[in-house]
Amino acid sequence: MNLPATLLLAVSAAAFTLPASAQFAKPEDAIKFRQSALTVMGTYFSRLGAMANGKAPYDAAAAAADAEVVAMVSHLPWQAFGPGTDKGRETAARPEIWQEQAKFKDRAEKMQATVAEKLLPAAKSGSLEQLKAAFGPTAQSCKACHDDFRRK
Amino acid sequence: MNLPATLLLAVSAAAFTLPASAQFAKPEDAIKFRQSALTVMGTYFSRLGAMANGKAPYDAAAAAADAEVVAMVSHLPWQAFGPGTDKGRETAARPEIWQEQAKFKDRAEKMQATVAEKLLPAAKSGSLEQLKAAFGPTAQSCKACHDDFRRK
Repeated sequence: MNLPATLLLAVSAAAFTLPASAQFAKPEDAIKFRQSALTVMGTYFSRLGAMANGKAPYDAAAAAADAEVVAMVSHLPWQAFGPGTDKGRETAARPEIWQEQAKFKDRAEKMQATVAEKLLPAAKSGSLEQLKAAFGPTAQSCKACHDDFRRK
Repeated sequence: MNLPATLLLAVSAAAFTLPASAQFAKPEDAIKFRQSALTVMGTYFSRLGAMANGKAPYDAAAAAADAEVVAMVSHLPWQAFGPGTDKGRETAARPEIWQEQAKFKDRAEKMQATVAEKLLPAAKSGSLEQLKAAFGPTAQSCKACHDDFRRK
């Protein structure tokens, strides 16, 4: 299945500012991509959580490296929620994503800002206490979006 | 399903040097993670390919940013090919990955080196000619591993 050119144009002009390279040939490619990016981000965020919650030994170098992955990948999923990507592959994305674009965008941006401004500096500080303090607000910024925009 | 502690220990001591945080609770988590990382890497590598092959307009800033994603993510999948992760979820991984660990490791390392030493500098150079020159060898380093270790 190929998207018609008009839809590709619409994707480029979506509410999220998309670089020219951010187009996906098919909705299922976009869905697979965003799920993949969120899986990578979630895996590394969980590792930080295990350290913050005492379920894994604190390793300052690993924490810093893990947070670098979270920070980079935190920017990636959003380009793949363009118009027409609400179906095409199994997805937990709720229709509210496309009905309440401003709110969704706000949640996504708050998460990215929390990661960049709280989680990453804390993980690079070498202090477990700082990591613990940053983990909760970051997890809350994930949850705030999941609660409204992800199917249970 | 939970892995027995002995298998988790085996995963930690796998041929690939794993950080303490690189354990996966279940084989299916490892498979999902590596597929996700490879999907993210492949998406960004394809964007560079589209520019290199004249199928998308050359955008020097986008090329540099795309290559940064490829370079970071190129290091991530390999930790998730530990012992016992040959099944647990649909996977294109061939048994040869675990039977020919040294060869698989060599292929993975060559790809990472090609990305770091050829693709990334070329993408950051601002020169489309350099990107074109680096794209082929990098694609070959992907293919060399896929040919032997990925099911058709």
